[in-house]
Amino acid sequence: MTNQSSWFETAVADLVDPQDQRVWSIIVSLFGDMAQEPGAQISGGALTQIIEPMGIKPEAIRVALHRLRKDGWIESDRIGRVSRHVLSEFGRTQSAAVTPRIYARDSAPVEHWHLLIAEDGTGTQVLEDVMLSDDYIPIGRNIAMRAGAAPLQAEGLLALDISPQTAPKWIQDRLCPPELRASCRALLTAVQNAAKTHPEEWTPTPLQSATLRTLLVHRWRRVVLRQPDLPAAFYPPDWVGPACRNSIIRMLDLLPRPSAAILSGSG
Amino acid sequence: MTNQSSWFETAVADLVDPQDQRVWSIIVSLFGDMAQEPGAQISGGALTQIIEPMGIKPEAIRVALHRLRKDGWIESDRIGRVSRHVLSEFGRTQSAAVTPRIYARDSAPVEHWHLLIAEDGTGTQVLEDVMLSDDYIPIGRNIAMRAGAAPLQAEGLLALDISPQTAPKWIQDRLCPPELRASCRALLTAVQNAAKTHPEEWTPTPLQSATLRTLLVHRWRRVVLRQPDLPAAFYPPDWVGPACRNSIIRMLDLLPRPSAAILSGSG
Repeated sequence: MTNQSSWFETAVADLVDPQDQRVWSIIVSLFGDMAQEPGAQISGGALTQIIEPMGIKPEAIRVALHRLRKDGWIESDRIGRVSRHVLSEFGRTQSAAVTPRIYARDSAPVEHWHLLIAEDGTGTQVLEDVMLSDDYIPIGRNIAMRAGAAPLQAEGLLALDISPQTAPKWIQDRLCPPELRASCRALLTAVQNAAKTHPEEWTPTPLQSATLRTLLVHRWRRVVLRQPDLPAAFYPPDWVGPACRNSIIRMLDLLPRPSAAILSGSG
Repeated sequence: MTNQSSWFETAVADLVDPQDQRVWSIIVSLFGDMAQEPGAQISGGALTQIIEPMGIKPEAIRVALHRLRKDGWIESDRIGRVSRHVLSEFGRTQSAAVTPRIYARDSAPVEHWHLLIAEDGTGTQVLEDVMLSDDYIPIGRNIAMRAGAAPLQAEGLLALDISPQTAPKWIQDRLCPPELRASCRALLTAVQNAAKTHPEEWTPTPLQSATLRTLLVHRWRRVVLRQPDLPAAFYPPDWVGPACRNSIIRMLDLLPRPSAAILSGSG
């Protein structure tokens, strides 16, 4: 075993999610990173070679693919012995919607928000209806907030522009819960460990690169999409999101995306 | 009966509160208007002459004076057959605190406010403690507001500056309740009626002037002090506060305050 292949194994071990590896979710991360363009295919063989090093069995990959087909995320076909998978229109739309937030190199806190306040009692239902259709964050039984300016019409709700300057601990805990902070810290540590031991002259094979990219994107996606970009005051002091983003992006920069030919199995 | 004395009687009838004449409260209005300065006295005789035309019996005035002495609002003494009453230090402080709002000739809506938001559940108690000591207005179980900038330290509450631009009906009804709006409309109508029939050449006697001033201040005090000066958006469309203020102030301008000598019974 060379020093280089052993680093790959160490990095994979660092980056594998210690808690929960949902295979279908890993496959979604993989397609989002490497096969989001219309027509971009991934062969069954490439998929297995990218995912197996994470300690996931081919049978689990088959089950996950079946589920993703059933849910309308991917479409598959088979020519001879070669199966090929593509994102469905639905899957591509879902993927594209979150791509900017996952790959953003900087993420400024968003300082201008608005509140919707419902009347106690009957108003709570009105607020719940609004929250069903828009991405408001509840901060109390009858209060929700969202980035941007207050709507002019708010259907019986009091709409108020806010730019929070300070925040009590309970708001930080609600919007940036302790377990999310812990996940983010653990990911930062994992990426920093991998970066520290990374041999300078190391060049990944295309599929090694794909494995590591998938792990990075998958872990980061599950941190960054758990909350919107909050006002600075709403982040708790132990929030390492920006440092984590930097180290993820830096490591992705070292790992080229494999060519379409390699991914589709025609290379 | 001359035309002039008959107008006085009509105006008194117009301005007497149709719902509730608490005599002690009328006396508070009277002292606040005419004997707020340290040392300013009102004799028992002047008091009776000012208040009796409102249809209030001397016995009711004696009972109210007794209550006001007991509550520490006024102090009384008697030399021979002449009793004299003054505001206590406490009474003067209470009176002075509300005088600017009662007599303000203009009252611009206050547009800069802040909210305090408590965490659901345990936080409600924290908010209630703050409301006990400061004049926050509750707008929900766990939300209160007050004019001015948000405090830097808010003891576990989320403090947010707001400048409300629009408001739903329930907020208007909560801060400016329908019965307050009705009182204000009724007072405006009463003052407008009195002003319309007022003979141009009419000159009140000092005690007639005092009676009408007392009625005007008393009725207006009970409207204007029921709420703070709210953001413009929080007033309902049928709120006639500014028109009412104008007509009250205009009529007070026609009614000179009696001299100290007349009020103290030494004139």
